[in-house]
Amino acid sequence: MSQQVHAVTAETAIDPDDITIAYLGGGSRQWAPNLIRDLAQSDLNGQVRLYDEYYESAQRNAEFGNWVHSDADVEPTSEWSYEAVESLEAALTGADVVILSTQYNPAETFVHDLDIPEDYGIYGAVAATIGPGGIFRAMRTVPLYRKFAAAIREHCPDAWVFNYTNPVHFVTRALYDEFPEINALGLCHEVLGTRHRLARYAREELDMDAERSDISVNVKGINHFTWVDEARCKGVDLWPVLEDLVDGDEGHQEFTWDDLEDESVFVDNWQVTWELFRRFDVLPAAGDRHLVEYATSFIQNGQEGLNRWGVKRTGSDYRAKHWTPAESDQTTDVEAWLEGDKEFELEESNEVFVDILRALVGRDTYVTNINLPNVGQVSDLEENAVVETNATVRANEVKPMAAGGFPRPVRALIQGHVDTIETIIEASREGDIDAAFEGFLIDQQIRTLQTEAARELFAELVAVQEGYLEDWDLSDSAVLEESEAYQG
Amino acid sequence: MSQQVHAVTAETAIDPDDITIAYLGGGSRQWAPNLIRDLAQSDLNGQVRLYDEYYESAQRNAEFGNWVHSDADVEPTSEWSYEAVESLEAALTGADVVILSTQYNPAETFVHDLDIPEDYGIYGAVAATIGPGGIFRAMRTVPLYRKFAAAIREHCPDAWVFNYTNPVHFVTRALYDEFPEINALGLCHEVLGTRHRLARYAREELDMDAERSDISVNVKGINHFTWVDEARCKGVDLWPVLEDLVDGDEGHQEFTWDDLEDESVFVDNWQVTWELFRRFDVLPAAGDRHLVEYATSFIQNGQEGLNRWGVKRTGSDYRAKHWTPAESDQTTDVEAWLEGDKEFELEESNEVFVDILRALVGRDTYVTNINLPNVGQVSDLEENAVVETNATVRANEVKPMAAGGFPRPVRALIQGHVDTIETIIEASREGDIDAAFEGFLIDQQIRTLQTEAARELFAELVAVQEGYLEDWDLSDSAVLEESEAYQG
Amino acid sequence: MSQQVHAVTAETAIDPDDITIAYLGGGSRQWAPNLIRDLAQSDLNGQVRLYDEYYESAQRNAEFGNWVHSDADVEPTSEWSYEAVESLEAALTGADVVILSTQYNPAETFVHDLDIPEDYGIYGAVAATIGPGGIFRAMRTVPLYRKFAAAIREHCPDAWVFNYTNPVHFVTRALYDEFPEINALGLCHEVLGTRHRLARYAREELDMDAERSDISVNVKGINHFTWVDEARCKGVDLWPVLEDLVDGDEGHQEFTWDDLEDESVFVDNWQVTWELFRRFDVLPAAGDRHLVEYATSFIQNGQEGLNRWGVKRTGSDYRAKHWTPAESDQTTDVEAWLEGDKEFELEESNEVFVDILRALVGRDTYVTNINLPNVGQVSDLEENAVVETNATVRANEVKPMAAGGFPRPVRALIQGHVDTIETIIEASREGDIDAAFEGFLIDQQIRTLQTEAARELFAELVAVQEGYLEDWDLSDSAVLEESEAYQG
Amino acid sequence: MSQQVHAVTAETAIDPDDITIAYLGGGSRQWAPNLIRDLAQSDLNGQVRLYDEYYESAQRNAEFGNWVHSDADVEPTSEWSYEAVESLEAALTGADVVILSTQYNPAETFVHDLDIPEDYGIYGAVAATIGPGGIFRAMRTVPLYRKFAAAIREHCPDAWVFNYTNPVHFVTRALYDEFPEINALGLCHEVLGTRHRLARYAREELDMDAERSDISVNVKGINHFTWVDEARCKGVDLWPVLEDLVDGDEGHQEFTWDDLEDESVFVDNWQVTWELFRRFDVLPAAGDRHLVEYATSFIQNGQEGLNRWGVKRTGSDYRAKHWTPAESDQTTDVEAWLEGDKEFELEESNEVFVDILRALVGRDTYVTNINLPNVGQVSDLEENAVVETNATVRANEVKPMAAGGFPRPVRALIQGHVDTIETIIEASREGDIDAAFEGFLIDQQIRTLQTEAARELFAELVAVQEGYLEDWDLSDSAVLEESEAYQG
Repeated sequence: MSQQVHAVTAETAIDPDDITIAYLGGGSRQWAPNLIRDLAQSDLNGQVRLYDEYYESAQRNAEFGNWVHSDADVEPTSEWSYEAVESLEAALTGADVVILSTQYNPAETFVHDLDIPEDYGIYGAVAATIGPGGIFRAMRTVPLYRKFAAAIREHCPDAWVFNYTNPVHFVTRALYDEFPEINALGLCHEVLGTRHRLARYAREELDMDAERSDISVNVKGINHFTWVDEARCKGVDLWPVLEDLVDGDEGHQEFTWDDLEDESVFVDNWQVTWELFRRFDVLPAAGDRHLVEYATSFIQNGQEGLNRWGVKRTGSDYRAKHWTPAESDQTTDVEAWLEGDKEFELEESNEVFVDILRALVGRDTYVTNINLPNVGQVSDLEENAVVETNATVRANEVKPMAAGGFPRPVRALIQGHVDTIETIIEASREGDIDAAFEGFLIDQQIRTLQTEAARELFAELVAVQEGYLEDWDLSDSAVLEESEAYQG
Repeated sequence: MSQQVHAVTAETAIDPDDITIAYLGGGSRQWAPNLIRDLAQSDLNGQVRLYDEYYESAQRNAEFGNWVHSDADVEPTSEWSYEAVESLEAALTGADVVILSTQYNPAETFVHDLDIPEDYGIYGAVAATIGPGGIFRAMRTVPLYRKFAAAIREHCPDAWVFNYTNPVHFVTRALYDEFPEINALGLCHEVLGTRHRLARYAREELDMDAERSDISVNVKGINHFTWVDEARCKGVDLWPVLEDLVDGDEGHQEFTWDDLEDESVFVDNWQVTWELFRRFDVLPAAGDRHLVEYATSFIQNGQEGLNRWGVKRTGSDYRAKHWTPAESDQTTDVEAWLEGDKEFELEESNEVFVDILRALVGRDTYVTNINLPNVGQVSDLEENAVVETNATVRANEVKPMAAGGFPRPVRALIQGHVDTIETIIEASREGDIDAAFEGFLIDQQIRTLQTEAARELFAELVAVQEGYLEDWDLSDSAVLEESEAYQG
Repeated sequence: MSQQVHAVTAETAIDPDDITIAYLGGGSRQWAPNLIRDLAQSDLNGQVRLYDEYYESAQRNAEFGNWVHSDADVEPTSEWSYEAVESLEAALTGADVVILSTQYNPAETFVHDLDIPEDYGIYGAVAATIGPGGIFRAMRTVPLYRKFAAAIREHCPDAWVFNYTNPVHFVTRALYDEFPEINALGLCHEVLGTRHRLARYAREELDMDAERSDISVNVKGINHFTWVDEARCKGVDLWPVLEDLVDGDEGHQEFTWDDLEDESVFVDNWQVTWELFRRFDVLPAAGDRHLVEYATSFIQNGQEGLNRWGVKRTGSDYRAKHWTPAESDQTTDVEAWLEGDKEFELEESNEVFVDILRALVGRDTYVTNINLPNVGQVSDLEENAVVETNATVRANEVKPMAAGGFPRPVRALIQGHVDTIETIIEASREGDIDAAFEGFLIDQQIRTLQTEAARELFAELVAVQEGYLEDWDLSDSAVLEESEAYQG
Repeated sequence: MSQQVHAVTAETAIDPDDITIAYLGGGSRQWAPNLIRDLAQSDLNGQVRLYDEYYESAQRNAEFGNWVHSDADVEPTSEWSYEAVESLEAALTGADVVILSTQYNPAETFVHDLDIPEDYGIYGAVAATIGPGGIFRAMRTVPLYRKFAAAIREHCPDAWVFNYTNPVHFVTRALYDEFPEINALGLCHEVLGTRHRLARYAREELDMDAERSDISVNVKGINHFTWVDEARCKGVDLWPVLEDLVDGDEGHQEFTWDDLEDESVFVDNWQVTWELFRRFDVLPAAGDRHLVEYATSFIQNGQEGLNRWGVKRTGSDYRAKHWTPAESDQTTDVEAWLEGDKEFELEESNEVFVDILRALVGRDTYVTNINLPNVGQVSDLEENAVVETNATVRANEVKPMAAGGFPRPVRALIQGHVDTIETIIEASREGDIDAAFEGFLIDQQIRTLQTEAARELFAELVAVQEGYLEDWDLSDSAVLEESEAYQG
């Protein structure tokens, strides 16, 4: 018998003029300044508590936030105050909204997620959310977020929790697994990017005046492996446009390393998207660099195989280089703005955080893609798995919109990843590392290895990241004991 | 394996300045004038084709509609033209929107739905949508609506179809059963009424400034047996208010015939609502007069039993008297307005038709309760059953919002009716009257009869309404042959 | 995700020559002598521990059992010893098999189950397993059987548990709810009786040489509301025979009190069976006296309504009279046999206990109907509900056979009872009497009452049986507090 | 709503003394002589019609069968006559039993199934039932078996159909898809082999007197990827034995080509079995050579990877060499027996055909593993998929036994193959080759290829086997048109 499940809702109304936001990971060098500027241009008021492992970074952001509302040469439409806090409790107590956005030092973690699997022949493109790298990122992150969920239950059970931390499906699932009544939303830009691109096609192919907000899609799947089976621009069906494009030059481009060498790692040529659309008649709605980790055919044949689709690997060097540890200096801009070395303006980001928040306090009805536990919005994936679909946000409520199911072959591709995620989440309850290995073993990327090679890869990743896996029981593991790579 | 089901959507955008509406049942004396006035005050433009069995009634409404936009002493904000048409094809061809709202002459049908079951001891309160009367109304109506669905498939497959005809669940289900790709919405006022009442409680108990549009509910169920498990006013949780009210005087009123004698049959004292809320902790969201036909305990003990809860029976005399056959004169008002005997004003109705239409053409994002095939929005009722939940309406799309499931006892009450409805719908495919009797036999109202009495009641209803049941195979029925009441 | 559920199995093989049976309720005056004789004629050997609230009755049965194997003038084919024990622990420790068959004093319980509902207009035929009487029997019995299950978990977790206690579905469900790994079988004679009757029809209509064991049926449902959709005699399809009979005189008999006055309460004229077969094309497989409590149409119109189908009520006077409290003398036969006043012979009973036991120790493969948690054997009832289907018994394993699902109307009738049972079982976990009332309220018999009358009936039954309901929390009940009949 | 599904049953009893068997593929050189000898030693009598594409082979077998019952120097316990027939209609009309066992000329088909995928890096071990080879075998075979099903519907709808043709899951599924009321059983030796091996362990480790028939298992899965989660020998739990073995030397053997060079391709060292048991705690129950095609980790790293587990590839040369086209001479033995060159004895095969048949005519209750549409016997795979579990066979009925579900990771591995199978079956309804390619693309073996390589492999296989794919629409395929390997 199905439980009486509702979608997320909070019990007490939020006062739009006195919103308290707790920002865990508030020392962020990029997202925090964006948030501060977006809030400054809103019709909402309140205070933000910045909490970070690196307190100084949080302080710097607090200083910047308060500067925007006092000394900067701009005219905010709202009033917000900022404060760096030194404890989780101080951040959370009485918060209306919690933002979760943290990351471990990639030099110690992420580079291994990419490089060690490569030694075994797995050429992940990002290695961030699924496959051996994604799974280990989840294994490091999930226990921490269980603690966050427990703290939220204790200090602000009714708060709206915005999770931006990857792997979004694993992490959001863990929050609900730990505290089922949490009001947590898993947020991601990929579907927004698809709508941006569809707006471009509407302009180019239909000569319409179109931007992202004019595009509506019926989206469903799991984060980074979402699919669209309806797309409209102001009500006009875009399917015929897509069918033309996939059959034409747009859908048939081939790339080599030479074409990509000077490109950003974020380059997206949509050739994976078109190929999957051609094969299955539904349109993937995430960047190609993410899709290839889920539709693993595309990462076969190493770099050449990947490049052919216009995808450039996000190498570990890139990540290590571009991730500035939070304790270090802020981005030049914040420093420069504060110092007056650069003119400061209230630009808007592309984030939808303020749009969602405005709807939650009753200022609007807003529809966007959100990762939430499945209560029926995806009809052929299991209940409770965290799925991504559109949701409608209104005063104090977020309800997913029923998005239906998938053609069988697409569902098969997705279901395999759900099985991995759910196996890992279940294993994480007791820190059962051998149970986690079962989820690892059935991962689509890893199935290209012999089981013994998979075991060694697993053990090697455990060995090198052991310091981040303290919530797992490494001492009583048959898998690790069998292995050569892990010496205990 | 679940099909790839989406919620309803149309392929082509509607031009807000050139909307074509086909109104089947357009001779209506009440709903049509409301529609005409609502459209006149909108920011949409177009033409309406009125089709009715009684052509003259359609003509009168057309005349009135055109008068509003030409000769009346008002200032419409829009331009609409009206035309009475003489064929289904003429009405439907190229229509963007179809309104379905028709009714058979109650003197020949509805009075029997009420009076004959009463002879068998079944004291229905309205007898309109479930129970022996509701089932026979369905048996008369479903075949006609299958024909409408077939005509829509032929002439305007992409149109948005608004069904207002009762029994809404049966009828909407039949439309989809006949033409699965139809974009049909089943619409009803009952949940709107609950939101009205909740707004009143918010004003009275919380001293809030509140009206219907400030109330959001999580609603789910089947039409006339919908339930709410969340209710907010501008984000403020109303559950504590409801719990206070049910425990106090408000929740403990008793009524007798003397209290009700002078009341309208529409009087709603919410005592059934409160009793069900007390028992099951979820709030019914339909008028008490409808609820009692689904939660059949309340129609036991005849009139006294029913009146105790403040419900007054909608007697057959009332219905026959108040239903003015469409071929007769329009309501005095339209006549009087046209004749200048009464001052005409552009009042707004409480209908949400124009609100939905504005969203469909892209002017708004609008949330309201709509009856749609279950694609997951109600997680513990079966796929394809027509369920009522909130839906989000945007340009050319209507998506139900995931509403979750029920506490087991409530689900049990609902499931029984779903089984009746689905059995009748399946029987209607081939006009199998004996299969329909199986659905009749398991109806909650009818289970208080011995099976032989149920058979005679069934046969007697068939006999008296035979002229409206021509799509059913009455000649080869074991049930009718066994019966005394039907002589074939 | 479905759990990895197997059907019941035990871990250790049973030695056919050293079987230890614990018999709870072993003071029984009828079933125990049958068991003793059946075992004496078997090819199995061991010991039986008799445990009973009335120790003397157990002692008498032990004396009788040992007498059969020593002093009686018969030649047992096996060796069995009997011992009365004074504690649950002494009975269960190390047992291979546990028999559960106990009953409360009906003068203090059962007569109320029948008579009080009758005051409210509910004319139950047996009132033993569903409806107000059955529910209260369950409410008394379930807590005791939870204790038995806990004791089995402690003392003999691997034992095979044969439950004969009514209501079999409630009780067997409670055993599994308390101790999910229990190897419990719910057993009942009704389906065996149907097979007996089908053998008679095979003899009479097909002139076959047939007895019960020649009849195979595909049976499914819940105990006392089981249905057959295939029936064969030695492979010959009996469906055409049944279709002839239902259409002829056999299927069209009517009865009055005069016809039944001199009959036993166990008289079964199959008119309910035929009427349900006629309506739904599947054959009920339980005595008519039980069926009418589940297909509640048949108990409408009081005694006359019931008698018309050839069913005679099992009045409370009958029960009180025929139930000889276990502490009193045994049946005349055992006394008479022991005293030599009556010749003793080793007759076989109709019980299948020894047949099942022989298969469990590896002597046979045996198929019979057994009540077990649903692991898929009934495809359209929920997992874990206790359902009755055929099962195949082999060495140390019992596996239900996949029996498929139901035509929708029949499923609807069954599902309603499953909802009642599951609601009560869930309520019993914490002794939540108000939650139990929700299950009571949705019962098919009780739905003919107004909710307030249902509440008073419930409260009155609680009041009169309070001494047997000590595991329920009666002190903090909103329902009882509202009531007049229960004064706390 | 779930359909009313039963397991397979026939309407009319079979006369054990006059059984008519139609054997399609009756020219078989190995299975037919086995059948003839098994029948000769049974207590059943009747006639066998042998039908084969190669009539002479059928004639030879008929001659041999009749010789056994007339001129051979043995004493059959039964009477059977044999006849070669020249049409499907002649074989099937009035048959009680149909045996399906045919194969295309491997030199033209099977060798390509193995060799062409190898060119793409897919090193299948048998390539017979899944992966590119298995899928193409299915694509050739399914249309033919749809025709057989249609002929059975026409000529002997009630017959018991024994399918031995691989891929058993695809083929059995196709029979039911074409004729849902067919009484078809999919049969395979693999689980029997597992029980053989378990008997050996019971002898060796527990010193029990054990043979295959003493072993009972709870088996479930799809053919060639079945799993056991309970195993007993005469009721004694074998799980502790298996856990010891997997941890010891038995479970830790490594092999190289040198170890295997002289072995038969059927060598089974159980190292795949043990590795999967170690990883997932359930025991696979099919030969390692089959398992590796479903648990595709084991076929990574080519020959070395495969050999390490003690599995030897069934090379295409082996198949071509050992398959003697049916039109050629029979095996030496039949010839030699007939000529008197070799002494003929009535040895029993290991086949269970006669055991099942004896139960079907009412002589026994027999339990064995059978492939059947899922009606609930496997609780977490979808309805209608053909699954393999135990079934109980009795007079004219075969009912699967409820076997429960899987641990999630194992279910994930199986579900992927079910998705492939169901996609291909659905594609085969209309011969939609592009839809079939979608099933091909999601196959676990093929996912190690880039999508374009998968397309070329597909096209190449189509090109080389085109003559066997005439029921597929090759002329209007986007996939083939894109390809280089298929020129149309």
